[in-house]
Amino acid sequence: MATHAKPIGVFDSGIGGLTVVKALMRELPHEPIVYFGDTARVPYGSKSKSTIVRFSMENVEFLLRFGVKAIIIACNTSSSWALPTLRRYFKVPIVGVIRPGSRAAVQQTTAKRVGVIGTEATIRSRAYELEIKRLDASIAVFSQSCPLFVPLVESGWLNGAISAQIARTYLAPLKRHRIDALILGCTHYPLLAPVIQRALGPSVTLVDSATQTAAEVKGLLAWHEWLQGSRQRPRYRFFVTDEPDHFARLGQQFLGQAIRSVERVNYR
Amino acid sequence: MATHAKPIGVFDSGIGGLTVVKALMRELPHEPIVYFGDTARVPYGSKSKSTIVRFSMENVEFLLRFGVKAIIIACNTSSSWALPTLRRYFKVPIVGVIRPGSRAAVQQTTAKRVGVIGTEATIRSRAYELEIKRLDASIAVFSQSCPLFVPLVESGWLNGAISAQIARTYLAPLKRHRIDALILGCTHYPLLAPVIQRALGPSVTLVDSATQTAAEVKGLLAWHEWLQGSRQRPRYRFFVTDEPDHFARLGQQFLGQAIRSVERVNYR
Repeated sequence: MATHAKPIGVFDSGIGGLTVVKALMRELPHEPIVYFGDTARVPYGSKSKSTIVRFSMENVEFLLRFGVKAIIIACNTSSSWALPTLRRYFKVPIVGVIRPGSRAAVQQTTAKRVGVIGTEATIRSRAYELEIKRLDASIAVFSQSCPLFVPLVESGWLNGAISAQIARTYLAPLKRHRIDALILGCTHYPLLAPVIQRALGPSVTLVDSATQTAAEVKGLLAWHEWLQGSRQRPRYRFFVTDEPDHFARLGQQFLGQAIRSVERVNYR
Repeated sequence: MATHAKPIGVFDSGIGGLTVVKALMRELPHEPIVYFGDTARVPYGSKSKSTIVRFSMENVEFLLRFGVKAIIIACNTSSSWALPTLRRYFKVPIVGVIRPGSRAAVQQTTAKRVGVIGTEATIRSRAYELEIKRLDASIAVFSQSCPLFVPLVESGWLNGAISAQIARTYLAPLKRHRIDALILGCTHYPLLAPVIQRALGPSVTLVDSATQTAAEVKGLLAWHEWLQGSRQRPRYRFFVTDEPDHFARLGQQFLGQAIRSVERVNYR
């Protein structure tokens, strides 16, 4: 099969990466996509670097079976810790969400004060901070891990007093630092955008990596002349390591459309 | 090695099972223990039955390498879903936490109205409900999953306004049902006992399976004449699938004492 006809591979620790798939479907509507969500071992954000790297390597190996022409790491935690190792081991082009997200924030901030929120592992990695500083050393970066945000989203508590109070608690230090742009450094967080925006006030722009990542993937494919030529409706395949039904049901919220076939994979 | 000299095996999805180890050390101070915490794949409570069973089978296989004389499933989620399958596959005696916890609650309730809280998977299994009904069909059982409790404990938010508000939200239906005993059906929950007690008021007795489980293990070993004869200080070994340091540090809170050697295991 010619490279341009091959699918794009996307992986995430679970379901959140579907927000990136949504952006890819919008930006590149003719590209077939193979999605892999490691729902049996989710979350990655509370785990150590070595485990995150090991799981990410396995995820790339899985996607390579489909002859993917490029791989997108939709997971912020995995992008933060595993990207350099993955690029060293595999020849396929691999795109993470940290650089696109950082670029978008650098474009947004006028006060040159950017906030970053993410899982414990993402924040511990300092990946966003280092990337933003590399793009513009004059920008001050303030980071905060928000370990309860993912379980809040997965519980469906997207609004209400408890979510608001948790958001205010996490975001108070960032507000005090007078940031004017906030990177939502976890694919679950866009679902909490309304409470996050209320906690910070209207002067802060929320930056979500998904759109910028899709644009970067489009650029990469164009540069290699790997863009899908056909105007046909592409095939989308979804693979998970836990129960497919649960993923298909919850996934609609993230993808914004029904998910047809989801297949289960066992690593062993 | 004679059976009585062999260690007891304990497994959990992560760190919480150390509360059961603590009770075992108190009840059976001369028994060597091998603990296995699946910290790379934690939590189990949000996953499906088939995944919980698969992981639990692997955990038992790991413990069998140490020639354990009995296995305790410290994890409520795994006890709820995997125990019947494990007993079918393995000859070693396997003790879960559901029956001991249910017995303790049946002894405690005078109103014959028992509440059960646990992970989504534990509550979905109805394991506690069925066991309590089997022991005393006249007892009414009211169940509630509390998916935010584990992340609250792991964030160290054991007190404060947010924990109190989340506890009140989850427990309000149980309070309305006028329960007088509540099973803490997850090894993390004893750390939230003060906020849970405040949310329910002093008339409700909190029941934690750990002590009752240790008593049941003691009975099992005595019956088989497998109790450790020696009065020596026993060896304790801890194995985890993610970073040992993090486990050793956090684990002190659960075990109530320092954890010396923790070793890492890779399944693949």
